[in-house]
Amino acid sequence: MGDSFGEAFRVTNWGESHGPSLGCVISGCPPLLSLDAALDIQPDLNRRKPGQSKITSARKEDDIAVIESGVYRGKTTGTAIAIRIANEDQRPNDYAQIADVPRPNHADFTYEARYGIRDPAGGGRSSNRCFAPNVAAGAVAKKLLRERHGIEIVAFVHQVKDITGNVNLDTVTQHAVEENIVRCPDQEAAERMITLIETTKKSGDSLGGIVTCVIRNVPPGIGEPLYDKLDADLAKAMIYIGAAKGIDFGLGFDGITMTGSEYNDLFKVENAQVQTTTNHSGGIQGGISNGMPIYFRVAFKPTATILRPQQSVNLRTHEPEILQPKGRHDPCVLPRAVPNIEAMAALVLADHSIRKYGNAAVCIPAEYLRPQL
Amino acid sequence: MGDSFGEAFRVTNWGESHGPSLGCVISGCPPLLSLDAALDIQPDLNRRKPGQSKITSARKEDDIAVIESGVYRGKTTGTAIAIRIANEDQRPNDYAQIADVPRPNHADFTYEARYGIRDPAGGGRSSNRCFAPNVAAGAVAKKLLRERHGIEIVAFVHQVKDITGNVNLDTVTQHAVEENIVRCPDQEAAERMITLIETTKKSGDSLGGIVTCVIRNVPPGIGEPLYDKLDADLAKAMIYIGAAKGIDFGLGFDGITMTGSEYNDLFKVENAQVQTTTNHSGGIQGGISNGMPIYFRVAFKPTATILRPQQSVNLRTHEPEILQPKGRHDPCVLPRAVPNIEAMAALVLADHSIRKYGNAAVCIPAEYLRPQL
Amino acid sequence: MGDSFGEAFRVTNWGESHGPSLGCVISGCPPLLSLDAALDIQPDLNRRKPGQSKITSARKEDDIAVIESGVYRGKTTGTAIAIRIANEDQRPNDYAQIADVPRPNHADFTYEARYGIRDPAGGGRSSNRCFAPNVAAGAVAKKLLRERHGIEIVAFVHQVKDITGNVNLDTVTQHAVEENIVRCPDQEAAERMITLIETTKKSGDSLGGIVTCVIRNVPPGIGEPLYDKLDADLAKAMIYIGAAKGIDFGLGFDGITMTGSEYNDLFKVENAQVQTTTNHSGGIQGGISNGMPIYFRVAFKPTATILRPQQSVNLRTHEPEILQPKGRHDPCVLPRAVPNIEAMAALVLADHSIRKYGNAAVCIPAEYLRPQL
Amino acid sequence: MGDSFGEAFRVTNWGESHGPSLGCVISGCPPLLSLDAALDIQPDLNRRKPGQSKITSARKEDDIAVIESGVYRGKTTGTAIAIRIANEDQRPNDYAQIADVPRPNHADFTYEARYGIRDPAGGGRSSNRCFAPNVAAGAVAKKLLRERHGIEIVAFVHQVKDITGNVNLDTVTQHAVEENIVRCPDQEAAERMITLIETTKKSGDSLGGIVTCVIRNVPPGIGEPLYDKLDADLAKAMIYIGAAKGIDFGLGFDGITMTGSEYNDLFKVENAQVQTTTNHSGGIQGGISNGMPIYFRVAFKPTATILRPQQSVNLRTHEPEILQPKGRHDPCVLPRAVPNIEAMAALVLADHSIRKYGNAAVCIPAEYLRPQL
Repeated sequence: MGDSFGEAFRVTNWGESHGPSLGCVISGCPPLLSLDAALDIQPDLNRRKPGQSKITSARKEDDIAVIESGVYRGKTTGTAIAIRIANEDQRPNDYAQIADVPRPNHADFTYEARYGIRDPAGGGRSSNRCFAPNVAAGAVAKKLLRERHGIEIVAFVHQVKDITGNVNLDTVTQHAVEENIVRCPDQEAAERMITLIETTKKSGDSLGGIVTCVIRNVPPGIGEPLYDKLDADLAKAMIYIGAAKGIDFGLGFDGITMTGSEYNDLFKVENAQVQTTTNHSGGIQGGISNGMPIYFRVAFKPTATILRPQQSVNLRTHEPEILQPKGRHDPCVLPRAVPNIEAMAALVLADHSIRKYGNAAVCIPAEYLRPQL
Repeated sequence: MGDSFGEAFRVTNWGESHGPSLGCVISGCPPLLSLDAALDIQPDLNRRKPGQSKITSARKEDDIAVIESGVYRGKTTGTAIAIRIANEDQRPNDYAQIADVPRPNHADFTYEARYGIRDPAGGGRSSNRCFAPNVAAGAVAKKLLRERHGIEIVAFVHQVKDITGNVNLDTVTQHAVEENIVRCPDQEAAERMITLIETTKKSGDSLGGIVTCVIRNVPPGIGEPLYDKLDADLAKAMIYIGAAKGIDFGLGFDGITMTGSEYNDLFKVENAQVQTTTNHSGGIQGGISNGMPIYFRVAFKPTATILRPQQSVNLRTHEPEILQPKGRHDPCVLPRAVPNIEAMAALVLADHSIRKYGNAAVCIPAEYLRPQL
Repeated sequence: MGDSFGEAFRVTNWGESHGPSLGCVISGCPPLLSLDAALDIQPDLNRRKPGQSKITSARKEDDIAVIESGVYRGKTTGTAIAIRIANEDQRPNDYAQIADVPRPNHADFTYEARYGIRDPAGGGRSSNRCFAPNVAAGAVAKKLLRERHGIEIVAFVHQVKDITGNVNLDTVTQHAVEENIVRCPDQEAAERMITLIETTKKSGDSLGGIVTCVIRNVPPGIGEPLYDKLDADLAKAMIYIGAAKGIDFGLGFDGITMTGSEYNDLFKVENAQVQTTTNHSGGIQGGISNGMPIYFRVAFKPTATILRPQQSVNLRTHEPEILQPKGRHDPCVLPRAVPNIEAMAALVLADHSIRKYGNAAVCIPAEYLRPQL
Repeated sequence: MGDSFGEAFRVTNWGESHGPSLGCVISGCPPLLSLDAALDIQPDLNRRKPGQSKITSARKEDDIAVIESGVYRGKTTGTAIAIRIANEDQRPNDYAQIADVPRPNHADFTYEARYGIRDPAGGGRSSNRCFAPNVAAGAVAKKLLRERHGIEIVAFVHQVKDITGNVNLDTVTQHAVEENIVRCPDQEAAERMITLIETTKKSGDSLGGIVTCVIRNVPPGIGEPLYDKLDADLAKAMIYIGAAKGIDFGLGFDGITMTGSEYNDLFKVENAQVQTTTNHSGGIQGGISNGMPIYFRVAFKPTATILRPQQSVNLRTHEPEILQPKGRHDPCVLPRAVPNIEAMAALVLADHSIRKYGNAAVCIPAEYLRPQL
């Protein structure tokens, strides 16, 4: 039904852009994980909230996460964790026109076709705002992964329109990513990106680009074969993000012109561990992690909302109508997509870890964790 | 657990490359669909079977589908449809070396890490051969979609290494695709692709490329919002295919350098239907179909199996070992991936159609089908 | 993970007895169902809330349901409906002793064994209070079933200890059930039940009994065969209710001494419909409804909480300890279990209806609904 | 869709009474479990097969289980285990009449209402024969539970019509159960049951009764709270068995006349373990095992098939018609239901064990298994 994600670590999401609240219920989280809303969840929500810089939407939302259940005296109880984010900045009346006239490349028309009804305020259920609860859930998953396996997830803006950052995947840190407002750890490229976004914003237009994500310290042997491959689940999780139109793993689309003898990642033993000399395939083989860093790119189309008149039709009368958008928008969603991507990656990995190792405890005896090689 | 795909139209898959049989159980198919193994399922299995042409693996498998349950006097009963494909060409002893020494870019090492055991013969469960049951299930889904909605799915080889076909997405037909053995409907490009594949095969190397898929006549309003977006489910389904490393929808990675005002698909009314003047986003908005053709590309890395010596390590001794592959392989998996992609696309669409309209009947009263616009 | 119920109409539940809130997210509800919290949900919550009469717990909880998402201008949108019930009467300090000393026949010990941690206040997640969100969700399901199929669900207290009401299953109405505080529509038996409960309450002890439920107007052909039989799902739903220890359908345990020739329900045609002359099997055959009324009984053990000293052990020291319960309790849970049972029955039926007919619309064209006989 | 059971240890079932084969796919079984079809699976299939004694159906089916996938050199690989049972004794033409005239208390009418089509031969998908694959899957689960936790499951015929066996739940063994053909470990009662069944068979009639099941050595802390309670899942699993019409746990329906002070199971410490002095509630509290034996009863209605003329109606003409059954039947299903019940109990427990402890390995380090008390 589209409101839940994951099998063994499952997130169920509720809310609309201008409803009373948004939130999520996390099911399957192991007990005894220390969890504090302000320390563990709020920082990621702050990274995705609107109004955080001059290049994001001016909408003001503090997005304060409140834990409603599942935590007792600072520790998870193993039962449903509900996190609620109250909506403060409701302006339902900004959206009168689009109730009848769908915005191009938004979900207005398709929701109407699916359901025969939709909440037009801010896109209702199709708003990117519905991602806030996922970021909250992802923060819980991140903490679990860090404590259970030492896993680290870093996403960053790699390309905006035709400006590409030069970034070393092996060494990039979240600290470096957060050093500028566009979240590109190549400072020089970041500056050009920011200028471009500002110019585009002024012209009422919008931009797309690429976010890259790298995941380190995933032990070999995480993932399911066949239908629930780790990369297949990551792909689903990423394409679910608003405006994401493509994903590739390892060399991805750039690797198709290589031959097998150039592409294949050969094996070696280093530090008593089986590793590969290259990592063209991005850390996953046959849907299961091989212990090398996992990395992938996500392509974003330019933001659908632009502040220019656009041709549309009235859904009731079928007459053409010019849509003149108002209000606040992100000229480029990528800086705010970074925490979204990290969150979704964390949810997928937490799910796969728990499928394999269960949810009896956060930390697992080494004897049980060791791949049986 | 990785063996089932879909919620409302669910396929559960079994089998290994050299086991007694492979097969699937389809659950949720509406009753009273005419279904004949030879007429409806076998043609697609023949399109994916090895040994079909000079550019595919020489392995001989007739892949005969037998319906074991769920069909009574030529019609589906609404209960579990099992399809079984007996393995004829078992050569388990071809695979002695790789029991201990994993092949680069195969799943040998990762299965070992996941399970501590694996069936090495032909890659066991990680073999592309495990896709045959999906193609059988996909053939059932295709027929359902055709009868219920008139949906048509056409995939084709778009690029091999750096040779790209020039193909019109609006008009390409399966008939044109099947006119040559590489399944590229641009006859001139196809000939160059075939020559390249033959040359590469002789040199013991392998190739990757791109398969494009277009889906027509999907009514607007198919898909789920949020986590089970139609494109997200398609992405998962495609990345699950062996050697697939990327997917993009509509303009995908090529659209990131456009601005929103260039990219957005504006609305018009044509034939009393709301349509878009362009289709840059590929027929899906907010995870739900908009009635325009759905199209996407899938990137394939070069086949992992190459007939050249490669560096590996012995998993028991951790000593380096040179792997000298023998046997039969596909120098380029793309021609045989075409039916795989069509099958997976059909499974996703059947699942979403049944989620919305149920499985009470194959054909749905027009009154119920009509989007409530 | 235990927090979600249903596949096509799915409820995800959160909350603890003394946490900030309890609530649920309903996924899969068809769009365009009129829904008003006060009119449609609150009445059932009022029927289950504590403090409603002299024979229920004195805990004061108004249990006000607030719809947080999924309803736009009084109609469901087809997307996640969140319902939240804020906790008003939190007394976490009443429960100091049981943090270490588990109460007999409560879940204190088993939660500790499952999770190594638990919220002791009011039983935390194991509290019957966690049923309030289900009753809210069940009210939505009831309304859907009424509008879609005309289904009517009536549960009532049939037996308390050894006092059995004399009730006609064919004619009993919810109106009759609500005429007294014990919810037994046999007024004479009800008075004796009330007296017994009051006497037992004074002595600090507790009582069990039987609730019977009848469901009318279920069309023939609702249910799934094999694993998800309608009766199997109802059984699961009922045993999930706190203190429920048994369930039987139709004649159930009383039918085992009959022979097949006495028990079998023979067919007849009446009002152009295939019916049965008797209904010993309670409206379900092979897991699928046959159009006759569905009825079943649920057995409840006496309430675990009693206001008498009981032997327990300290979980930290393993020393014996006498537990002296304090506070408020229900001497007999049955009157308040009545809305719980109706709610769970509604959830199961809504789920099965949507699996068959989808969630495109609340009301389905007659052509699609008609069993294909 | 009704063809799959379980979440983390999932069985998907196919087949009809007279189709080419029946079978199942087990997903989620841990790797490296020794598994041999003849040693581990066949014995339970032999216990449920027809024709095993003078009091069961004379249908001859050897029910030979063949493992089609998921086992390599005698050990599970962690991937899908398919088990296939070919049908040998197909007599599809015995069932001409019931194609149009439904048998009372069978699923003929309800399948027709659900699907508009059904396979009439032997009841098609609704045949008890479809249970054979579950027994095979249950045998795998039983072995897993024995190796992982030392769990032992014993079911037996407790009552046939009004003859009740006198059996000690604490000491009954499967060996004692198998000492007579009716599977009642009270030898004297067993003889009377056998005589009654034989007499009833001669008269063309049928019988019901009660099967009791006890499960020992379940560690405390297995189960999920709320919706997926261990007892709720067991109830669903049991009601799914053909002819089962009721289930109760512990004292069940017999405990409703007790007061709480009589019923509650008080705590003690014995052998350094928290135990209860009585076990009225049958080993489960709040949906989670408490370490005491789990026990429950299942009520069976008399077999629907009787060899006497019965009133029915023709589904095509709606005219009354007398049904004169022919062929073979079980006058009392209980002896053959015993392995069914054990199998379903094992599937539920395996599922819950894997949800908690994962499927990385069959045996789990003691450190991880120990309840955190």
